[in-house]
Amino acid sequence: MVSNQEREFLSGRRVAYLATADARAVPHVVPVCFALSGETLYVTIDEKPKRTTGMPLKRLRNIAENPAVAMVVDRYDEDWSRLAWVELRGQVSIEPVGPALEALAERYPQYRAEPPPGPLLRLAVSDAVVWSAGER
Amino acid sequence: MVSNQEREFLSGRRVAYLATADARAVPHVVPVCFALSGETLYVTIDEKPKRTTGMPLKRLRNIAENPAVAMVVDRYDEDWSRLAWVELRGQVSIEPVGPALEALAERYPQYRAEPPPGPLLRLAVSDAVVWSAGER
Repeated sequence: MVSNQEREFLSGRRVAYLATADARAVPHVVPVCFALSGETLYVTIDEKPKRTTGMPLKRLRNIAENPAVAMVVDRYDEDWSRLAWVELRGQVSIEPVGPALEALAERYPQYRAEPPPGPLLRLAVSDAVVWSAGER
Repeated sequence: MVSNQEREFLSGRRVAYLATADARAVPHVVPVCFALSGETLYVTIDEKPKRTTGMPLKRLRNIAENPAVAMVVDRYDEDWSRLAWVELRGQVSIEPVGPALEALAERYPQYRAEPPPGPLLRLAVSDAVVWSAGER
């Protein structure tokens, strides 16, 4: 369940940072684009598998081993009293782009010109942490 | 070993995103400040333990269980041909602020006014991934 406060903060940010871990608990983190559609959070994985190895991306291999992820969205400001972030944790599933395209294209004009090839991650949020420097 | 290209990119960015995982491989990710001093990367953890529980921060508990971390620094731009990021992976140790303060205060005037209370994380980089949209 994503609160209205979290939803508003997420809507105002363009990039999130998605952490996955493999079965040996070795973490991996990358910038990602995302969109909320109702209670569902979609994350795009719009790079192709590495041409050199033909291997699927590390984050997809990690998710196949371990669907637990964490995602953070933040506001940085040189006035540190304005720092804030929202971390969402949960389990992801790998899905084709399908109906999430509308929510993504609404946020990112870039996807209107060139839709993400997919797959997408669909995050079922089980836990959210909201932090802001102003509330320390 | 941090390459000159990675070093230059890192120097130009203000925030990194640090992913840790607990022993059950559940990831956690937060924005952090950082500084390179020679070959050593320092990351600040400048929040106090939660007053409500007296528990150390989740990222410190994760590191005690599992010192493997990943950290990403990125450049976002609405012109997606300018997207770029550097991910560093390795093992961290927990240290007092000590001599890292100089490197941190050089990058962040905020720390000159109020030094981070510590502890710090010291990251021994074992692996780096550099990605830029221009090189796809």
